[in-house]
Amino acid sequence: MSTTFTTFKGSEDGSIVKSSTTKSELTGDQVLVKVTASGLCGTDEHYRKAGMVLGHEGCGVVVATGPAVTYTKKGDRVGWGYQHDSCGHCQECLKGTETYCPERKMYGYADLDQGSFATHAVWREAFLFKIPDGLTDAEAAPLQCGGATVFNCLHAYNVQPTDRVGVIGVGGLGHLAIQFAAKMGCEVVVFSGTDSKKDEALKLGASEFHATKGAKELKVGKPINHLLVTTSALPDWKLYLPVLASGATIYPISVAEGDFAIPYMPLLSNGIRVQGSIVASRYIHQRMLQFAALHQIKPVLQEFPMTVDGIEDAMSRLNKGEIRYRAVLIPQEA
Amino acid sequence: MSTTFTTFKGSEDGSIVKSSTTKSELTGDQVLVKVTASGLCGTDEHYRKAGMVLGHEGCGVVVATGPAVTYTKKGDRVGWGYQHDSCGHCQECLKGTETYCPERKMYGYADLDQGSFATHAVWREAFLFKIPDGLTDAEAAPLQCGGATVFNCLHAYNVQPTDRVGVIGVGGLGHLAIQFAAKMGCEVVVFSGTDSKKDEALKLGASEFHATKGAKELKVGKPINHLLVTTSALPDWKLYLPVLASGATIYPISVAEGDFAIPYMPLLSNGIRVQGSIVASRYIHQRMLQFAALHQIKPVLQEFPMTVDGIEDAMSRLNKGEIRYRAVLIPQEA
Repeated sequence: MSTTFTTFKGSEDGSIVKSSTTKSELTGDQVLVKVTASGLCGTDEHYRKAGMVLGHEGCGVVVATGPAVTYTKKGDRVGWGYQHDSCGHCQECLKGTETYCPERKMYGYADLDQGSFATHAVWREAFLFKIPDGLTDAEAAPLQCGGATVFNCLHAYNVQPTDRVGVIGVGGLGHLAIQFAAKMGCEVVVFSGTDSKKDEALKLGASEFHATKGAKELKVGKPINHLLVTTSALPDWKLYLPVLASGATIYPISVAEGDFAIPYMPLLSNGIRVQGSIVASRYIHQRMLQFAALHQIKPVLQEFPMTVDGIEDAMSRLNKGEIRYRAVLIPQEA
Repeated sequence: MSTTFTTFKGSEDGSIVKSSTTKSELTGDQVLVKVTASGLCGTDEHYRKAGMVLGHEGCGVVVATGPAVTYTKKGDRVGWGYQHDSCGHCQECLKGTETYCPERKMYGYADLDQGSFATHAVWREAFLFKIPDGLTDAEAAPLQCGGATVFNCLHAYNVQPTDRVGVIGVGGLGHLAIQFAAKMGCEVVVFSGTDSKKDEALKLGASEFHATKGAKELKVGKPINHLLVTTSALPDWKLYLPVLASGATIYPISVAEGDFAIPYMPLLSNGIRVQGSIVASRYIHQRMLQFAALHQIKPVLQEFPMTVDGIEDAMSRLNKGEIRYRAVLIPQEA
């Protein structure tokens, strides 16, 4: 039995197009999910003109399961993110870093006929995540990519509770990073252009807040051990290098073109590390969801209807930097 | 009782000047060392016009000890490197990363009146290293900076014997990196401009050798996990990024001006790490010397007399890339 469902694609001129996708009968460990919420991420904007179905921060309910599905049942609340599949037998898969599997299937270049801007989607059980009870679908959606991306930096690279974590940018990624790092026990030092997000950043768990626009120097309490760069423009290193501790790690985590460039000698003489990082491996993704539920770490949401107008409105506000702090799209039809 | 000894300085026009330094009676844990050999490092060239005493790969024999010296005796063979002192009580000192102590005293900006291009020098016992029996003074000298620098990358950042280590450049640093990595059990993949150093690189322990001049693509056996960049020019990342394993670490270790720049998206999507690194902390430096003695890891030396002419000759050959593979200067007077 095949299934046909509604999807929303980008297009060459950037307008959103309502479309439909048909999937044939479920095979293997495939699961048919009815979408209940989708986050909107900067990467969706990046692929807006690619003519593919958009969305990769999905949450929904299982409505049907394929013959080889083992631990997922109809009615389960599940989420999925950037990665849809991997080979399962390479070194990366075997050591739990399947995000780097050479045959990985990722948003943007695999499964272009479906995404989370849709009423339904079909995914492998192996790449779905159970949503813990303490989180609603709408809350869990932005955790599938935004949450997983910042949590991965904080979890996979030896951030310690006694470390000071810097977060540049208070947006979809930054406002989650502040919460995760604070609940891990870290002091969190936030850098934002102006003071407009100061109160909220402190409420989310920041210990310090610094407005950087026009600043000639940053006066942080103590040096920073881990710096998450959530803005797509590279920071002014003349401002930030002096506030980094020796051996500090810099995580550039938003999508950007061109080169990553940083002054050469300070990198060496202070033992600075630049760590490329993408979304979380599945075991880290699971830990992230459990940690979020335990500590009630939730995105601050702005809801939009999952319609052509609703998606275009949300994307246009995201482009203008008006979203406080993550847009979530809610399907309007069954 | 004061001591006066011969030193060799750089000068504004780059010529080497014979000079002398007088040190007053030894205090605290100071040790007077009679120099028996000094390596010549690229950093000496870097400071050639600074008017300071040059040399920071020293080996010698203890001739006198200060009142607080505890474990060093007259007649001991000792070496020293880039670092002369640290505060001893900051976080970095306490956790064994005193190379990043905010009050560290390093070659180039502290103790400019003495160095290893000299007949003698006075240093704190705490920053001297006993030379193991299996190494001569001349062999041990280049290990004090060159050896310590490459060994630190291989030891401090979790290189595993099952990893593949890439080394760009077969020179003073590179020819030691090949030996250390090979003896650690790693496969070593060497990249050099032409085939001229191929036989020697393989003899030193390389498993693969690739000439890169004019290459459009590098065909390495398997991806590389750790890449030591020992050349001062940044490599062509279009060549090297495709041969790096996911999660690979790049170590830029020679002194260079300007920015370190690398394509942004491959850094993220392959989880690449760029690790700034300098010389070794003392406990790692000690392990390096013991490992070198145990496995008979020795620099390939070209000897020069430690005279104005000898130093100028050695430096000029180093500049022209003619040294195979480390120059060592031997004092000519008592």
